[in-house]
Amino acid sequence: MAKPSKQPRPKAEAPKGFRDYFGAEVTTRAEMLGKIAGVYHRYGFDALESSAVETVEALGKFLPDVDRPNDGVFAWQDEDEKWLALRYDLTAPLARVYAQHRNDLPTPYRRYAMGPVWRNEKPGPGRFRQFYQCDADTVGTSSMAADAEICAMLADCLEEVGIERGDYVVRVNNRKVLNGVLEVAGILDPANPDHFAEERGIVLRAIDKLDRLGPEGVRALLGEGRKDESGDFTKGANLNNEQAAKIISFLNIGDMMFSLKAREQTQRLAMSGRPMAFAGGSNPSKSAISFLRSLVKSSTIGTEGVAELEEIAALLAAQGYGPDRIVIDPSVVRGLGYYTGPVFEAELTFEILDEKGRPRQFGSVAGGGRYDDLVARFTGQRVPAVGVSIGVDRLLAALHAKGRIGGTAQGPVVVTVMDRDRMAEYQAMVGELRRAGIRAEVYLGNPKNFGNQMKYADRRGSPVAIIAGGDEFAKDVVQIKDLILGAQIAENATLEEWKERPSQYEVPRGQLVEKVREILAGQG
Amino acid sequence: MAKPSKQPRPKAEAPKGFRDYFGAEVTTRAEMLGKIAGVYHRYGFDALESSAVETVEALGKFLPDVDRPNDGVFAWQDEDEKWLALRYDLTAPLARVYAQHRNDLPTPYRRYAMGPVWRNEKPGPGRFRQFYQCDADTVGTSSMAADAEICAMLADCLEEVGIERGDYVVRVNNRKVLNGVLEVAGILDPANPDHFAEERGIVLRAIDKLDRLGPEGVRALLGEGRKDESGDFTKGANLNNEQAAKIISFLNIGDMMFSLKAREQTQRLAMSGRPMAFAGGSNPSKSAISFLRSLVKSSTIGTEGVAELEEIAALLAAQGYGPDRIVIDPSVVRGLGYYTGPVFEAELTFEILDEKGRPRQFGSVAGGGRYDDLVARFTGQRVPAVGVSIGVDRLLAALHAKGRIGGTAQGPVVVTVMDRDRMAEYQAMVGELRRAGIRAEVYLGNPKNFGNQMKYADRRGSPVAIIAGGDEFAKDVVQIKDLILGAQIAENATLEEWKERPSQYEVPRGQLVEKVREILAGQG
Repeated sequence: MAKPSKQPRPKAEAPKGFRDYFGAEVTTRAEMLGKIAGVYHRYGFDALESSAVETVEALGKFLPDVDRPNDGVFAWQDEDEKWLALRYDLTAPLARVYAQHRNDLPTPYRRYAMGPVWRNEKPGPGRFRQFYQCDADTVGTSSMAADAEICAMLADCLEEVGIERGDYVVRVNNRKVLNGVLEVAGILDPANPDHFAEERGIVLRAIDKLDRLGPEGVRALLGEGRKDESGDFTKGANLNNEQAAKIISFLNIGDMMFSLKAREQTQRLAMSGRPMAFAGGSNPSKSAISFLRSLVKSSTIGTEGVAELEEIAALLAAQGYGPDRIVIDPSVVRGLGYYTGPVFEAELTFEILDEKGRPRQFGSVAGGGRYDDLVARFTGQRVPAVGVSIGVDRLLAALHAKGRIGGTAQGPVVVTVMDRDRMAEYQAMVGELRRAGIRAEVYLGNPKNFGNQMKYADRRGSPVAIIAGGDEFAKDVVQIKDLILGAQIAENATLEEWKERPSQYEVPRGQLVEKVREILAGQG
Repeated sequence: MAKPSKQPRPKAEAPKGFRDYFGAEVTTRAEMLGKIAGVYHRYGFDALESSAVETVEALGKFLPDVDRPNDGVFAWQDEDEKWLALRYDLTAPLARVYAQHRNDLPTPYRRYAMGPVWRNEKPGPGRFRQFYQCDADTVGTSSMAADAEICAMLADCLEEVGIERGDYVVRVNNRKVLNGVLEVAGILDPANPDHFAEERGIVLRAIDKLDRLGPEGVRALLGEGRKDESGDFTKGANLNNEQAAKIISFLNIGDMMFSLKAREQTQRLAMSGRPMAFAGGSNPSKSAISFLRSLVKSSTIGTEGVAELEEIAALLAAQGYGPDRIVIDPSVVRGLGYYTGPVFEAELTFEILDEKGRPRQFGSVAGGGRYDDLVARFTGQRVPAVGVSIGVDRLLAALHAKGRIGGTAQGPVVVTVMDRDRMAEYQAMVGELRRAGIRAEVYLGNPKNFGNQMKYADRRGSPVAIIAGGDEFAKDVVQIKDLILGAQIAENATLEEWKERPSQYEVPRGQLVEKVREILAGQG
């Protein structure tokens, strides 16, 4: 028993919803962020790193009159009574930075940022309260070329980190088109934007639930309402048949897109992975655009949205980004509320097995769009902006699922300690190995039990162990053990058994580095 | 005037004590962290990334009974009344992680971590409340080989990031030696450690102020006390002359070291930078060790400390880390309170000009040592550990001061927009450049005023601008402007003036990439 102490011992636990990342989890993510930063940089985007902490007022989460200002964010009061909070995304800080430094920044300002953000939300499986975001935004231009550029850059990023062409698609839609649909359905009046707000809310939530409720469930919500399996009733938007038909035909274009894409994928597979050349009527972007144009032709805003989509599609086509990579797709509705113009989402199209072993689409790994109102909060001036956020943790999960990254990083060569008094000589060995660029370390635990040293090397994932005791020093040689070859007997062997194995080599001390390099090369 | 609004606009300001980092500030630091991570990795250290947030109890800042638990840290109460806080260093989280995951981690556990930490302190010039740390620690071994390894690794890191050999020195001391000095001075009784605590506190604070107060000021504090210029009196430790003499002679060894080092540096310079071979009596580490041994010979703990220093020195010498890189130096006293054995500090030895133009030594950029009590807080078991923390922001400042890094990062090639309707063709140009690995972008601001486009390119630090209007497209050529050559006239030129300059070339459209590459190569 431990001796009694005045204070109870603290629990050694990360706070609820937070976790630790070890070894390859850290370095693989860092590599991915580095690759994405390289693409962003090549597109002319500049790095920005703002602090994790912002004033609550700058974040736009205004204090309610209650005791809990940190709803959704982690917030606390500074010594001069100001509320500070951890950033919950990288866009709100960008708006603050741009408003603060706009006189020193180029216009347009292309910036990228990567780092953790924090959400004070109920954690769940795979959902943490700290996670990485990796954003690029262009502030200060309303040119659709900025939107097209970000879509192309997103496709390049996905390929750069190892998602092959054909395994992803960037889907582009436009918030204005949706507004146009709401207008032709008679529940958006440009002259009186507050009118029908309740109906629009119901319709938008219904569209957003298409995946879950299916077309019939959505249809019910567009009309009188819907009773779910438990008997709970959700109020509907009370649209008449003609109104509902407009919304439904808009949703159908999404279905049409899906079936088009499915057909293309089948064709691509039949052509052993070579991307198809899309042309004319078989180009799903062109089909979607002409369908949408006729659907919203009586709406000014809707027609504007369709024209924007057409411009983006033309710019991308001119750069060779065809519908095998980027498609116009009205079925993108997620997150539309936040955006004011084009929206886009990158989706991985391959299947993975879920936790119950069922195949499912991997789904969305990045999203973004045009938002024109963030900076105005500070300056009173509207500044147009468009950006994208890549979900690096989901991308990493996808690459793991595809087997493109994974396992543990290779451990160091371990120089075992047979004779405590020769520590300096063991250190000299690792020094030589490191100077040759080989990861290496001396065993620094208690060297008495040789088996423990080998267990340590095993736990470290070491490819090679070096063994040198009195005999070896007398003969000026070292024993070099190939641990990958010898892995199956790693647990319980004695020193003598180890020495007898064919995966072990005795070489002159002077050939240490050369032999280790040879073994590592053989292990691939 | 802006229209009246219900809520006042938020201020666009980073919170007090926090700042934003732009462009090269971000990428240069990321490169440095990457290089240091490479060295740490080669030494067998594994990456660890814990979250920014810890429970206050795990951080070891126990809640007082008052209203402000966040003294020194940023802390807040979770929804279930638990106090959470931002980490103030990377060592406290390591202790928590090791205690939590110790059954899954190798022993010893070598880990590195890099990332921001937060201090709730009064910000000052150059002092921010968020800054980077970059640590490596070995947990679970009391072998001095671990300490020696970290000293060698620290030297390697400094050279890897561009501090040349001779421009830095890693100074090593041992907390036990200081305890030995306190023991022989009669103010530390191993049998009764609480005795003389007040005197020891006064002496340690006095030693720590040696730089500022000078030897006379310290002598006064060892005795009856000291009155400063303002007339304020600081109470002394009331040591008698014999006691004070022990402390003073300990401090003198520091001075001796300094003068030895100064002599070596002069000699090194005389030998045009080639590091001297140190041997025998001229080796300052050996001199220091024999002096210290005689000084503390009646103290068990002090003698143990000297033996540890000697072991570290021998291990380092065997690996070729001589006193041109690492020295035993009893004048290292800073931060001793935190550590329980060896301590070390890396200092840059070159001079820089301070803000008033006076030359001064750059000083400390890294520090560390052995601390054996952190994990015991959680588990009740003492786990030995040793680590180092590199101050990357200070290192970056040093490299800037030496002109080894700096300026702004090179901007992108800017393709200007002469004809808005040809945006797709301009996009195709940047696409080609990027595929050739050249950073490039299309100007996305309002293209009406050509001068603004050139001002933009100037602000972006662009090396090259591409110009193509109706004439060029008709002839299938592009104009390529070398902006480095043409920088002096960038501000007010007209398009016609630009075209006439010798730093501008007309090439066939198909030679765009080739010519840009040639110009960039010429700019070196």
